[in-house]
Amino acid sequence: MSLEPLRAVLPPHVLVTDPVALEAARADKSGHRSVAAPLAIVEAEEVAHVQAAMRWASEHGVPVVPRGAGTGLAGGSVAGGGELVVSVDSMRRLLDVSLIDQSCVVEPGIRNAELNELLATHGLWWPPDPASRAISTVGGNIATNAGGLLCAKYGVTREWVLALDVVLADGSRITTGHRTVKGVTGLDLTALMIGSEGTLGIVVGATLKLRPLVEGAVWTVGAFFDDETSAAAACTAVTAARIRPAIMELVGIDAVTMLAAYTGRPMEGAFVLVQTDDLGAEATSEVVAGILAAHGGRVERTDDLSESDALVQVRRQVHFALESFGTVLVEDIAVPRSRLAEMFGACHAAAARHGVRLAVTAHAGDGNLHPTFVFDGEEPSEAIWACANEVFAAGLALGGTLTGEHGVGLLKRRWLADELGERQLELQRAVKATFDPQGILNPGKAV
Amino acid sequence: MSLEPLRAVLPPHVLVTDPVALEAARADKSGHRSVAAPLAIVEAEEVAHVQAAMRWASEHGVPVVPRGAGTGLAGGSVAGGGELVVSVDSMRRLLDVSLIDQSCVVEPGIRNAELNELLATHGLWWPPDPASRAISTVGGNIATNAGGLLCAKYGVTREWVLALDVVLADGSRITTGHRTVKGVTGLDLTALMIGSEGTLGIVVGATLKLRPLVEGAVWTVGAFFDDETSAAAACTAVTAARIRPAIMELVGIDAVTMLAAYTGRPMEGAFVLVQTDDLGAEATSEVVAGILAAHGGRVERTDDLSESDALVQVRRQVHFALESFGTVLVEDIAVPRSRLAEMFGACHAAAARHGVRLAVTAHAGDGNLHPTFVFDGEEPSEAIWACANEVFAAGLALGGTLTGEHGVGLLKRRWLADELGERQLELQRAVKATFDPQGILNPGKAV
Ligand SMILES: Cc1cc2nc3c(=O)[nH]c(=O)nc-3n(C[C@H](O)[C@H](O)[C@H](O)COP(=O)(O)OP(=O)(O)OC[C@H]3O[C@@H](n4cnc5c(N)ncnc54)[C@H](O)[C@@H]3O)c2cc1C
Ligand SMILES: Cc1cc2nc3c(=O)[nH]c(=O)nc-3n(C[C@H](O)[C@H](O)[C@H](O)COP(=O)(O)OP(=O)(O)OC[C@H]3O[C@@H](n4cnc5c(N)ncnc54)[C@H](O)[C@@H]3O)c2cc1C
Repeated sequence: MSLEPLRAVLPPHVLVTDPVALEAARADKSGHRSVAAPLAIVEAEEVAHVQAAMRWASEHGVPVVPRGAGTGLAGGSVAGGGELVVSVDSMRRLLDVSLIDQSCVVEPGIRNAELNELLATHGLWWPPDPASRAISTVGGNIATNAGGLLCAKYGVTREWVLALDVVLADGSRITTGHRTVKGVTGLDLTALMIGSEGTLGIVVGATLKLRPLVEGAVWTVGAFFDDETSAAAACTAVTAARIRPAIMELVGIDAVTMLAAYTGRPMEGAFVLVQTDDLGAEATSEVVAGILAAHGGRVERTDDLSESDALVQVRRQVHFALESFGTVLVEDIAVPRSRLAEMFGACHAAAARHGVRLAVTAHAGDGNLHPTFVFDGEEPSEAIWACANEVFAAGLALGGTLTGEHGVGLLKRRWLADELGERQLELQRAVKATFDPQGILNPGKAV
Repeated sequence: MSLEPLRAVLPPHVLVTDPVALEAARADKSGHRSVAAPLAIVEAEEVAHVQAAMRWASEHGVPVVPRGAGTGLAGGSVAGGGELVVSVDSMRRLLDVSLIDQSCVVEPGIRNAELNELLATHGLWWPPDPASRAISTVGGNIATNAGGLLCAKYGVTREWVLALDVVLADGSRITTGHRTVKGVTGLDLTALMIGSEGTLGIVVGATLKLRPLVEGAVWTVGAFFDDETSAAAACTAVTAARIRPAIMELVGIDAVTMLAAYTGRPMEGAFVLVQTDDLGAEATSEVVAGILAAHGGRVERTDDLSESDALVQVRRQVHFALESFGTVLVEDIAVPRSRLAEMFGACHAAAARHGVRLAVTAHAGDGNLHPTFVFDGEEPSEAIWACANEVFAAGLALGGTLTGEHGVGLLKRRWLADELGERQLELQRAVKATFDPQGILNPGKAV
């Protein structure tokens, strides 16, 4: 495939064929890697570059992999031989902020944390908070409908996007949605784009819905429990008490054990972390502490920043602790909150059956679990895939879903029909085909 | 078209051909009426009835009009000659409520208010609150993505639906979405269905996201202003102060004048109504009162239920007051909140140019205006349509949208391309065609 026609319409530094850059585009953070390097990377600096790339690609039938910061955990931005990467990593401007409309307009490559630092100076906040917020792009958050610790209370990315500027497969550009808080003109293509993992179009701009920063102190409650069942029951009881914590996390026993070894700090059991915010945070945290204690938790409660941080670190350091024991494969399923304890049980049973090491953490506030395999060597064993298969099946059987926040990407395609059913999958593929009749956008990913 | 094959597969009372019922199906609450009565009504009592109707309709190419309670204001459920109405009005059960998952499963015909009364006994709440909540169905709220007074703070219908059970044009049934709070498997067909006005499928069941009832006293602030510009500026200042009122409404001067005549209660100027709820409601209402006063408002503030109700009635009675002066045509546009005062001005200028009577109210909290024409006789005049046209153009020019909450239906189709652009409209129609290749679902409506 000759890149000459493309080179002719782009500034020289925008069309990147440097082997080091091409190597990097073969991977994201999923641990997955393509067999060969892509053709080239269009490192777009403006919308016209994206359009030129898509026009060339559709004319020549070249597959395109959209890419933000490449922090995805599902292989969605992994690019292989013969593919063109269209990266919006360098389109990082905040174009407009309105305090009165509580909205802002951004380019897709801006980092989530970078945006929120700018917004904070206006007293505003864009709530989606993936743990990767310092390193992932807003466009990537949109393309994956990212969630985070706060999303049980504040919602996922979908709730915080008003309008999108999108370049379609044929290079044309549309604006979906509304700059207004409400609007019901036509089908909701904005929502359709969100979470579509680069298969329908390339997000080149977004109008985001914002909210005022939450004011006042944050209270933190941490508790260790003898077993995961009591810990899960305590979380369930918090929700049943109609409390809406900002954060509610559950770290399973195995993860805590590895964490104790990693940090050298003595701790054991299953750990629950709850944070309350906004008006009434203190009183609510007291009620939470009472509930956790009543379920057998050994409770600490604080609004002191450094004590609070120590508790939060128990949750945040899990990933690093697990990595210190081997290679990790992070899974991502969600079940109705009421089935949390059963899902922990199902994970352990499956791991025991297959003799694999599986540590489980959960965003307990929204029923999203990250069963994480820890193993030696580079590649997951057959036993791990067999175990993962059972974990997915158990999640679906409990009324859950295959991916709470990381997306389908490359890694979960084989389970799609199990969840969606054949008829819906067919419909999803038909919708994809209306956006991208040649199938050049992220082929082999998601739907 | 012989109904016999359909009659053969449905219980006799489900296939309705009673002329009085057919007459009623020619209209909704938009004031629009079809030229002739539809063929028949399938008054479905279970999903299988809807499927049987759709199988028959697709086999014979018969157009189908889905119908809830028929309270729509855009003509979406108006059925004409040769069309089959599929009504889910009688499928009204609440099938399941989970306090822990904060979700419930309903049939589509359940009335919004009826559902919320049942949920209140569990301390739970489904927030979408169209003014029609006592008479409109949850399925209709979903099909129109209904909003209400509370949606600036609590969001529109789209934010409160987790999963849908849908019968497609060919009679097959799919389940979109997730019963979990989070889930990103596949394209978001749930969001695509929401607001699609019966053009993609028939909603036969829904899993709704709930939240705990908001606790504590509600505080109400009402204020009359000499002019609409100050009133709008006051609303803007409330938002700029990062306050999130539960309700913020603005009633224009003409509407207040008609209301004074209708109620016999002396009042004049433009009226702003603000309610604050949840923890801190009282303190916040004090700040709001201060802001309104600083903008020249004559302010009342109360948490007394009957005084509060008197203030709320100023807003709620507007519709009836206007109707006492003639036939009304309620329009529905939304602009970014910062353009509210300009949009009021544009409405008055257009009305003056065309010599028509136009009273304007607004959900000021979310920039959604209801410019309402009041006229003699049954049908809006040419001057009214010309004025409406200018109002829409002005709304779009201010960065707004053609319909904030009522939908496109029959009435706004001619303006669709202005807002969406040709390329997007083409794409929307292609998406519609993947769901409904024969074009039998609500033809001539919405997209
Ligand atoms: C340490 C760590 C923690 C994480 N924590 C979370 C978490 O808490 N919650 C969570 O949801 N995820 C988490 N992730 C996953 C990842 O950060 C998110 O999926 C993030 O949204 C991806 O953003 P990105 O810019 O890196 O996108 P990429 O990885 O570059 O791309 C992700 C997908 O989106 C597509 N895409 C990217 N940009 C665009 C665009 N502009 N237009 C169209 N398609 C596009 C790509 O094709 C790909 O399919 C974590 C990752 C890491 C490494
Ligand atoms: C006094 C009054 C006040 C109102 N206030 C508001 C308000 O504040 N906010 C607001 O948003 N609206 C308001 N409305 C408009 C209307 O009540 C809403 O649009 C409501 O959501 C319609 O519900 P319904 O059951 O009456 O639907 P219908 O009028 O029967 O149908 C509306 C549309 O949805 C489709 N539809 C209905 N049910 C289904 C289904 N199960 N599956 C697929 N498609 C379906 C129909 O084909 C049609 O296109 C008001 C109406 C009145 C009369």
